[in-house]
Amino acid sequence: MTATAAALSATAPVALHAFDDAIALQASGENRFLGRTTPAYWNMIGPFGGITAATLLQAALLHPQRLGDPIALSVNFAGPIAEGPFEIEALPVRTNRSTQHWNLTLRQGDAVATTATAVFAVRRETWACGEAVMPEVPAADTLPAMGGFAPVRWLKSYDMRPVRGAKPTAEAGTEHPDSLTQFWLRDAPARTPDFAAVASWADSFYPRIFLKRAGFVPAGTVSMTTYFHADAPTLAALGDSHVLASAQAQVFQQGYFDQRAQLWSPAGQLLASSHQIVYYKE
Amino acid sequence: MTATAAALSATAPVALHAFDDAIALQASGENRFLGRTTPAYWNMIGPFGGITAATLLQAALLHPQRLGDPIALSVNFAGPIAEGPFEIEALPVRTNRSTQHWNLTLRQGDAVATTATAVFAVRRETWACGEAVMPEVPAADTLPAMGGFAPVRWLKSYDMRPVRGAKPTAEAGTEHPDSLTQFWLRDAPARTPDFAAVASWADSFYPRIFLKRAGFVPAGTVSMTTYFHADAPTLAALGDSHVLASAQAQVFQQGYFDQRAQLWSPAGQLLASSHQIVYYKE
Repeated sequence: MTATAAALSATAPVALHAFDDAIALQASGENRFLGRTTPAYWNMIGPFGGITAATLLQAALLHPQRLGDPIALSVNFAGPIAEGPFEIEALPVRTNRSTQHWNLTLRQGDAVATTATAVFAVRRETWACGEAVMPEVPAADTLPAMGGFAPVRWLKSYDMRPVRGAKPTAEAGTEHPDSLTQFWLRDAPARTPDFAAVASWADSFYPRIFLKRAGFVPAGTVSMTTYFHADAPTLAALGDSHVLASAQAQVFQQGYFDQRAQLWSPAGQLLASSHQIVYYKE
Repeated sequence: MTATAAALSATAPVALHAFDDAIALQASGENRFLGRTTPAYWNMIGPFGGITAATLLQAALLHPQRLGDPIALSVNFAGPIAEGPFEIEALPVRTNRSTQHWNLTLRQGDAVATTATAVFAVRRETWACGEAVMPEVPAADTLPAMGGFAPVRWLKSYDMRPVRGAKPTAEAGTEHPDSLTQFWLRDAPARTPDFAAVASWADSFYPRIFLKRAGFVPAGTVSMTTYFHADAPTLAALGDSHVLASAQAQVFQQGYFDQRAQLWSPAGQLLASSHQIVYYKE
């Protein structure tokens, strides 16, 4: 290697992971960040909701006044996001000794497309107990990766290894006994997880009504909340492991159903729990 | 009855239920409402979180631009609320054809005490399915009312008929096998429920760690989200029935635990599901 080649090599840019590229934000004044949609996380008619949740969280994570780490994130999908640039306003509305409360707003032009609140906290060791028990499932490396069953780009940004309920299997129009989906999940290509990754993973389930009704109907998440139970070192220690993702609805009623989701480490730690309410048309 | 007595009787004020008194708001300019704490819903060092959630929701319910009914409410308890007056700002940040998104902020002076977001929607009849099944429990009228086990005033504003986990029962310092509490619940005195009542009911469980650890430690809800699955006529039809309230934690970790809650009609309909993340000190 010549000296010139060595110098070039040393300064050659490391390829940015598509997830980091998608949540990249540029500071643009006090409490304001600029971002833009990317093709890798495109859904049917807008970005995948998980990447929007992750990007809103990222604004608080990047904010110079940030205190601690995320423990709660509630995201309201108020309107469509068009392909292109957007602005996020991240407002630390109250900072206490060990907790911090955020209001987050994603706008395109004058239109509010997404709102969110986040709670950050400085965590410390306490008595701990995992009361919920991880489902017993085959290990990720014993299961084949799922071929995306829907023609949406963002599914290719995840490696999903279905355990059950991966896709509607019954005859269209018949009713499935439950709406439970379980799969092993990681980013594709693999990426060491952080809070933003978890925020996105929590929305990685297709709408429960597709499974329950064995078919496709118009449906979309209206509001979702994620609680982060694992701290940053725990997430980083996962490396390129898969996590077990599980989701199920409780009730479908008058155009809206709920979804309860869990993300588990391979060792059985509940990393995050998440809930959403989803519009459907039938 | 004399004509005078009849006239007096016809205009005699109907006594306001303490709940209606507690969530009463007075319009005070565009998007602004004035309220105040009341003794009937006082907790240890501030108002019961449920009444704060209900009062924030009430601001959107009363707003002249309101569209539809609540389907989601996320409340962040950012700081203490002192006895006395407060102001709520209720901002309809986006109104679509059939959904409306709200930012809600409760302030005392310049301090933000509570923030919330709400999603309202015009609901319509669709295919429906109650996938989750109500626990089998004895009927409310076969169970004695619980005597409040903690010296807090708001407990007297509810009639609770415990099924299990009503209060810590094991020896202090030992660990309870689970954190599940179930009780039949209604307002005391009885009040025909509405969305505000449900928002308050969703927070009517004492902190799960009291049960799990069989003792009292400092603990308080930081963020809670409630999804409303029943419409207004369904709630009104409950009349003075009790609802079955159920709550359980999944994980206690580094100073925060979660709680998953359900509210069921006596006929087995899931009226609302709710989740919260709670600070604890151990």
